[in-house]
Order: sequence, then structure tokens, then C-alpha cells
Amino acid sequence: MSRQLHLGAFMRPISIHTGAWRYPGAASDANFNFPLIRRLAQRLEAAKFDAFFMADHLAVLNMPIDALKRSHTVTSFEPLTLLSALAMETERIGLIATASTTYDEPYHIARRFASLDHLSQGRAGWNVVTTGNPETSHNFGSEVHLAHETRYARAREFHEVVTGLWDSWADDAFVRDVESGVFFDPDKLHVLDHKGEFLSVRGPLNIARPVQGWPVIVQAGASEPGRQLAAETAEVIFGSADNLARGKAFYADVKGRMPALGRDPDSLKILPAAFVVVGDSDEEAWGKRAHLDSLVHYDSGIRSLSIALDYDVSGFDPDGPLPEIPESNASRSGRDRMVEAAKGKTIRQLAAKAGSYAGLSFVGTPQTIADGMEAWLEERGSDGFNIMFPWLPGGLDDFVDRVVPELQRRKLFRTEYEGTTLRDHLGLKRPANQFLAE
Amino acid sequence: MSRQLHLGAFMRPISIHTGAWRYPGAASDANFNFPLIRRLAQRLEAAKFDAFFMADHLAVLNMPIDALKRSHTVTSFEPLTLLSALAMETERIGLIATASTTYDEPYHIARRFASLDHLSQGRAGWNVVTTGNPETSHNFGSEVHLAHETRYARAREFHEVVTGLWDSWADDAFVRDVESGVFFDPDKLHVLDHKGEFLSVRGPLNIARPVQGWPVIVQAGASEPGRQLAAETAEVIFGSADNLARGKAFYADVKGRMPALGRDPDSLKILPAAFVVVGDSDEEAWGKRAHLDSLVHYDSGIRSLSIALDYDVSGFDPDGPLPEIPESNASRSGRDRMVEAAKGKTIRQLAAKAGSYAGLSFVGTPQTIADGMEAWLEERGSDGFNIMFPWLPGGLDDFVDRVVPELQRRKLFRTEYEGTTLRDHLGLKRPANQFLAE
Repeated sequence: MSRQLHLGAFMRPISIHTGAWRYPGAASDANFNFPLIRRLAQRLEAAKFDAFFMADHLAVLNMPIDALKRSHTVTSFEPLTLLSALAMETERIGLIATASTTYDEPYHIARRFASLDHLSQGRAGWNVVTTGNPETSHNFGSEVHLAHETRYARAREFHEVVTGLWDSWADDAFVRDVESGVFFDPDKLHVLDHKGEFLSVRGPLNIARPVQGWPVIVQAGASEPGRQLAAETAEVIFGSADNLARGKAFYADVKGRMPALGRDPDSLKILPAAFVVVGDSDEEAWGKRAHLDSLVHYDSGIRSLSIALDYDVSGFDPDGPLPEIPESNASRSGRDRMVEAAKGKTIRQLAAKAGSYAGLSFVGTPQTIADGMEAWLEERGSDGFNIMFPWLPGGLDDFVDRVVPELQRRKLFRTEYEGTTLRDHLGLKRPANQFLAE
Repeated sequence: MSRQLHLGAFMRPISIHTGAWRYPGAASDANFNFPLIRRLAQRLEAAKFDAFFMADHLAVLNMPIDALKRSHTVTSFEPLTLLSALAMETERIGLIATASTTYDEPYHIARRFASLDHLSQGRAGWNVVTTGNPETSHNFGSEVHLAHETRYARAREFHEVVTGLWDSWADDAFVRDVESGVFFDPDKLHVLDHKGEFLSVRGPLNIARPVQGWPVIVQAGASEPGRQLAAETAEVIFGSADNLARGKAFYADVKGRMPALGRDPDSLKILPAAFVVVGDSDEEAWGKRAHLDSLVHYDSGIRSLSIALDYDVSGFDPDGPLPEIPESNASRSGRDRMVEAAKGKTIRQLAAKAGSYAGLSFVGTPQTIADGMEAWLEERGSDGFNIMFPWLPGGLDDFVDRVVPELQRRKLFRTEYEGTTLRDHLGLKRPANQFLAE
């Protein structure tokens, strides 16, 4: 059999696209309509997606009120509670939640993802983010946002602590011998006793080892420290490459780092985020995309651009070029992409791009889209994609009803789940306990 | 109609009783058996309980391994993920989760409970605890456990921040005007901008105001600062009174503080924890209780006693009296109860009591138990109870099948839910937004 695509649904309901809630036929309340989200999760499962992947953010006050009032991301469900609910309403699809290593505690994170993994019988994944949004620090008692390098150093240690806590108990630790009154075998307990640069955590965790051993580790990082952290620890990443040449370079770079780190490159799946618009013809699809982009208000676009750059550009001439932008602490992938895209464009054009979606897109007929995805897979640009839907539910329905069958017809995507856990879907091994023999 | 009982099910599966998992017919894995927990929640809902109430703990390494190995509390689901799952499997019963003000952030707490409240359509409650377990600090990077008074001062401010964040948005803030592209009305957003002694949190919260306005605020505190915090902020409390005289004194004390604080005493429901063992005769019920107590191993009991006292008493003569115990930072209710109970008892006897359940118990026939509960209700010892089941599922089934019908026959307990939210069940008003007009 040829290589197979892995597909995640990258959900930031309503959409990553800031105009999405205004698209004709879109559910403008899709970020907060649980019956709709449940139906979408069930449709994605029927289409055999690997995972339902919840984006997240820990602050909303990231732009002046006149621009913020146009944003549909100001209200949404908290990912761990939402996915625990969806675990009851689905049976097979993976459930990936985003959680920050900068603004949370490893004991909490390890415990919640372990709990979700048990509740879902092995379908949990943790998207490890370092939280680039500088506004977040104001919601967590800190006036100074951690420097980019420091966030990644803390993330590396945080990952070590969380995975160490998941290995607190052997899989068969709980003997529950009613006769002798022994509930667990003391030889099958490991006390982590971690004392590091950023964290001090004793353990053990107060929950049995996850069904998957460890929930699947997901990362987005595209910066140099992000790539290195991913090569060391990630099992799924979505880079920021916006064309196949960059995708191949990213794929080769990150997977190339792994053997020297003692890791099999197949133990990491690279699934770039891909924004997909489907049409009856390529022209119709591009027309939909143009209509969608036209729904982004300039007030909103200029602020999205300022956020991507971590620099307020609203005072410059909209019809002039982008000035020199200073370095910052913010997420680098969005920033670098925008600086790159600025060549020959006006600020107004960049604002429209920033408020829509500036990264990798597939726009066209199901055949055109499948051709594009097949090329990425065959040429080692990726192992699949995290699909971003342009609006809900129509954009998702189009993908599920039209693109998935085309991918299945080409034998690039499964027609049935072969296993029960997220690791099974992704072809990832269950990690052995690093401290305790089986 | 006479006053009505309110009933919560205080779940620390398997049971608060450390011998429970060994009881004949008990599910020894009940703390971690989701299908069983789901069935129990559905049984409690069919019996019209006000709430399913999850206890919690953030550390397990609280005793030497030879005693710890006998403990069934070392593995359990995390409350917010568990209750989000149960929200899908039930329709009416309230869902109360315990969360700590000492080892978490108000932005996270406000958000998760709001999310649970939306997912459950208005059934969430937050049991505000200050975390008395000194072991917990080692799991959260701190070597020094906060002093008792400091924990309560922080809890008071934490409550103010969380409720302030819940009021970030007016109930009708999200206008989603597709035509003009305005998603929310800026006049219906409040930025908290809290800067206090312990916490600095800007807001707004990234989720709409909870269905109930605020999830129901629950507290346990029995110490002086705990009582004062409850009088100021709680809507449900369970004190530690272990007999009716103490219950009445506690009830009168806490409710008596409220008018001066501008609160209606009816806006607080006092529901003491009550351990209930049902039998065909009083003698049979006491026999069950004795059997259950006999299943507590001495190694385990002496450690439970040391935890309650926050002082290691394992080195003293088991058959001698309890020595003088120094003051400590730990939870005071358990400690004071044990010191009180020590009069005329040996350490061995106290250990047996500590490992079983030393607080308020109702043991007897359904009639005996209903008589006791009716007396508490009529004499203003309480507004109901948080029932602790002696083992699962049998102890819960006995209560639901035998005691509830007796309470209903006496018209002391509902036979149908009259509303849909936890506030409806408890007869609590929905709080108005403190910042924004409706």
C-alpha cells in the first residue's frame, strides 16, 4: 500500500479565518454551539479523521475594542472540558487539546490529559504550546512576558516532568487484593522527585498511567528552538510552511535531526495546517475564497497584522509599504511569514491577508485538492495535514463529503479505523514506562 | 409544604471510608471505573439528588508506603474532566467539582467552571478549597506550605477575581450582527483589571457568562476563617458538625453572620457531610458498619490519624492515650475533631476511627435514618446533607432504593425536579452581573 495521509481537524471554531462567521450559510455561533460541535465531531469521525484538534488562547484583549468587537474568538469552550464531553459522544476519533507550558503547572497538565485519556479509552493528545500571545501574562499575574528562548527551555523541562508523572505507576500497579488489603504494589510506583531549573515536582501523579502510556505529544513550533524541541519530543507537529518547497525543507530538517537524538523519524508525523476551500470548479473555489476574504473588515485586519508582527502598524499609511519591524518575544512563525509576505505589498493588502489566512491553502475542486495533498505526501513535504475549515458547518461538510472520498478513492486515506487509540490511528508506538518494568 | 431537604452525593469514589473497597460486594475499582460511575450518577439523578459532588486531592504521597499501599484514593479521575463527561450522560443533576485556590490560577478556574456550566446547561458548582494537605506543595514547586490564615486571605481574593471574571460579559453581549460585522457589543464587556494583595488579573474571560450567572459556590471550611469566608461568599457549605447540637450551633453561627454582611440567610444552604449505612434493622446496620470498620488495617488507620492531626503519632504506644499535639497549618476541622474524640480513648481506638469515618453518621433502618434527617431539618441543624456512601455500588443503591422513598413519603424530598439548573434545585437566585446592566 502507498503511504497514507493522516488528517487532523484543526478546530478553532468558528474558523481561523476572521471573516468566517459572516459567510453566507455559516453558523455565526459555531464557537459556542455545543450541539453543532458534537455533530461536526461525529461527522469527522464518520470520515475517519485521525483527530479533532482544539486550538486555544488564554486572552482575548489583544487589540483595541473597535477591532476586537469584530472577533468571533472572544468566547469558546475550554478545551479539556469540551473534549471530555466529546469523548462521550464519539468512539474512535482522537481528541487533541492545546495547553500552555508557560501558564500552567505540570501536575495539573499531566493529570488532566491522563484523565481525558482514560475517559476516552486512549484517544487523548496534548498540543504543547509556549503561549506567544503577550497579552496572556496580564491574566496570570505577571507583568513581564517570558522571553522566547526562556519559554522553550521551560517547555522542554515541563515536557520531561509531565511524561515523568505519567510514568508514576506501572500499568499493572493496582492489584486491589481484597484479602490482604493491599491496593497497589509498592514496587510498581515511581516517585519522580524532579528538581530542575524552572520546576520542582515530587509526584507521584494521582491517576493511573494513561491508556496510551503517554497521550500523543503535539507541537507547532517553527522557530529554531521550536524545531529542536519538536525533534526531541514531538510525535505530531504542524509547521508553518506555506508551499511545498518550504514544506520539504522543514520536513527534511526536523526529521533529519532525529536519528542523532536516538529517535526513529517515523515516530514523528508532520501534519501542516492547511486551509481548504472546495468548489465545483477551481474558479468557483477561488471565488468563495475571495468572498470570504472580503468579509474581513480593515479595522480587524490591521490589528491581526499588528498581532502577527507584535508591532502596532495601524499608524502607518495603509497604501504604503511595511516599515522595518523590530524583534520581539512573540511567536516567530506568524511574524516571519508576514515580513516575508510584505515584499511588494501595501499594508492594506497585508492586513487583508493577516485577517484571512496567510498560510498553506488548498483551493479548488476535490481533484485539485487531492492532487496537491498527494504531491505533499509523495514528495515528503508532510505525512498528512491538519485541516482548517473556512467556515462551519459548510466548509467542513464540503471537505468530508467531497475531498475525503476522493482521497479514499486514491487509496491515500483509510476507509475504516484499524485500531482504537489515537496512537493506533497515527501509527505511533505506545511508549514503555521509563522507570518501571512491565 | 414543609421545609425540603437538599441532597448532594459526596463522591470520593470508592468512599471516604478507607476499608470500603474491601467490603463484600464492593467494586474495588469504583474510583476508576467510568461505566460504574456513570451508572451511579444516573441512579442519583433518577432519585432526584441535587448534585453529584466530586471531592479532590492534589497529592497522594501523604504516608509511608507500607500504609499508602492500602489506600484506594491514589488513583481517580480529575474532577472537571470527569464531570464534563458526566454532563453528557445526565440531564438534570448538579455537577460540583472541587478546585483549589492555593494551587491554581483564577483565570483557569473561572474558565473551566464556566465551560462546564455551559456544557451542562447550568448545572456546575465550584467547591472552593484552600488545600490543607501539606504534601501538595511539593507537587507545585513550593517547599513551604502557605499558612492557614494566608490561604484563607488568598481564597477570599481568589473568589472575588473568579466571580469578577464570570461577569466579564453581559448575558446578551454577543450580538453577532453579520451585516455590520460586529460580533459583540463593546458596551457589554467589562475588563476586570484586578490588582490585589495576592493576585493580578486583567481579564476579560474568554468565555460567555455562565448559564447560571455564576456556578454555585460551595465551601467546606469549619475553622473561624472558613466560617467567615463561607458567610461572605458561600451558597452551599458542609460543616464538620458530628451531632445535632453542634450542627445547630454551626448553623446559627454562620447564618447569623449573614445579615450584617448584607446577605439573606436563605441564600446559603448548609448541607453537612453525612455517612449513611442502611440495614433491615438498626442492629443489622450497625453490624455492617462494624464489619466495614474492621476492614481498616492498623497501619493505615494510624497514618490516617497522623494526617488528621498533622502530627506523626505512629511512634507512641498504640494502647496508651494520645499525647499533647502541637498546632499546625493543616485543615483544622479534622484535627479538632480528633483531639476532641481522644478523651478516654487509646491511640489504637482513635486510629480505627480515623481510618473509618469519624464525622456525622446515620446508621439504621430507612425509618431511623429519615427520623434523624428530619430532626436536623426541623431543628435547623441543616438544610439537607451531602451523603457519603459507605461503599459502592451497594451503599449507594441502599440509600437510593430505601432511604429516598422514605424521605419522599414524608414529603421531605422532591419526587421530581422543578427546574433545570443546580441553582433551581437548591432554590438559589441567579446573581445579577455586578458590572453590567441586563
